[in-house]
Amino acid sequence: MKIIRSVNLMTKSVLAQKAARRSVGFVPTMGALHEGHLSLIRKARLDNDIVAVSIFVNPAQFGPKEDLKKYPRPVNKDISLCRKAGVDFLFYPRSQEIYPEGFKTYVTVEGLSSLLCGRIRAGHFRGVATVVLKFFNIVRPDTVYFGQKDFQQVVIIKRMVSDLNIPVKIKVMPIIREGTGLALSSRNIYLNKEEKKATLAIPKALNLANILIKGGLRDSKRLISRIKMIIEKEKKVRIDYVAIVKEDDLTPVNKITGKCVIALAVCVGKTRLIDNMAVKA
Amino acid sequence: MKIIRSVNLMTKSVLAQKAARRSVGFVPTMGALHEGHLSLIRKARLDNDIVAVSIFVNPAQFGPKEDLKKYPRPVNKDISLCRKAGVDFLFYPRSQEIYPEGFKTYVTVEGLSSLLCGRIRAGHFRGVATVVLKFFNIVRPDTVYFGQKDFQQVVIIKRMVSDLNIPVKIKVMPIIREGTGLALSSRNIYLNKEEKKATLAIPKALNLANILIKGGLRDSKRLISRIKMIIEKEKKVRIDYVAIVKEDDLTPVNKITGKCVIALAVCVGKTRLIDNMAVKA
Repeated sequence: MKIIRSVNLMTKSVLAQKAARRSVGFVPTMGALHEGHLSLIRKARLDNDIVAVSIFVNPAQFGPKEDLKKYPRPVNKDISLCRKAGVDFLFYPRSQEIYPEGFKTYVTVEGLSSLLCGRIRAGHFRGVATVVLKFFNIVRPDTVYFGQKDFQQVVIIKRMVSDLNIPVKIKVMPIIREGTGLALSSRNIYLNKEEKKATLAIPKALNLANILIKGGLRDSKRLISRIKMIIEKEKKVRIDYVAIVKEDDLTPVNKITGKCVIALAVCVGKTRLIDNMAVKA
Repeated sequence: MKIIRSVNLMTKSVLAQKAARRSVGFVPTMGALHEGHLSLIRKARLDNDIVAVSIFVNPAQFGPKEDLKKYPRPVNKDISLCRKAGVDFLFYPRSQEIYPEGFKTYVTVEGLSSLLCGRIRAGHFRGVATVVLKFFNIVRPDTVYFGQKDFQQVVIIKRMVSDLNIPVKIKVMPIIREGTGLALSSRNIYLNKEEKKATLAIPKALNLANILIKGGLRDSKRLISRIKMIIEKEKKVRIDYVAIVKEDDLTPVNKITGKCVIALAVCVGKTRLIDNMAVKA
């Protein structure tokens, strides 16, 4: 595995592979890798000749009051995990390599970026779209892998790829959960024992909603209120939003028809967590 | 020459050429081609195996009160000029091919886009940056050709290409002028005889400034006031701005040192014209 810190070397290395007609799969991450990331890397490994992974805690997607500084950076462990997973190129750039002095260009997917998580995290998805577009241009992957855990991010990146005619295929892999049902997240390490216990209300509420939908309940308002009731029983959990939306454009639905996504964000202590579940009727 | 109206076919056609290791030069235009455009096409022809030209009057770069509807579209003449100039691919897409329903993604080069022309033309450079990035992804050129006439546009696109790691080389070709000194522009056809005569003050003022600089005058304020004096003698010409700025980041300079650009915009009747001159001390 080559660890690459320079943009130019990353592009050169990948172009040499593409010149030899090898397919390139790419998994962009912020590091602190867990089984969710590893499931993407394994899928990329299965699908492609060459696998590139990036580790970059992207300052542009953190708000001024968010956890940029304390975001976990267990670099040696991440490197070892990538090596074991058969990664060919680990792109691990410094911040000034990605945002050099005088940087001024941003990509915005309007509308989609101000809904759900975007209501609280102003500028977050602008930072995401910008860095993802940059990494697409640097790594030139044939296929890129994202986790369904970051549902809104996936919708926004798919829209950007289509709108800007970006030559890349997107594959989305399912959420990986702990035995307890909690969705894996690099931020789970912020949780203390009590907080962790409280988070169990989240998968419990999503699962109940799914059962109710299978049982015939279609009304979003009633479903949302049932979800909130379960989560609100936990004093340590504060709901940011619970929404049921169309899977392709985040439009809220009143009645569940076809494929929808129940998406939610909560704060547990100081830790913000998101989760979602695809449902259909 | 192939005339191509579909995005997919355009990309396919160019990729076939690139697979055969032919270099691709690209000249994006809004049509109404004049000698300025043709100088870019000729240079692209000289430098590359394959030349692609686009003709697309980009709605995203026109303000609600601007001349989108009446912008000249002499398509048959343009086609014939491209054919004569040895163009291989003429990309001439319909608007809904470029901005399909649900389009939401825009590229903004912050700071640079709100200066000079951007002060009056809000959103203009956002529209330019967005369509240019799209066309880069559709046409995949090795080298793209722009005219120095659109100086601010060139600065913004260079910044975008660098910031977003876009794999394209940019070449900028000099302004082409009529015998009278007026810079060629597709909008010159809006001018009546009297207005056209009045525009001569523009190159006259720029030339005088250049002479003054060569004679030792370095103070921007005094130079700008001399330029304005000459232009303001023409009753039909209303000055939008006259500025002396750094050539790479549009920062205004107080004293001319090194390479600078005198940039200006005026209205002659209802027609908005821009011009500029590179100067150095």
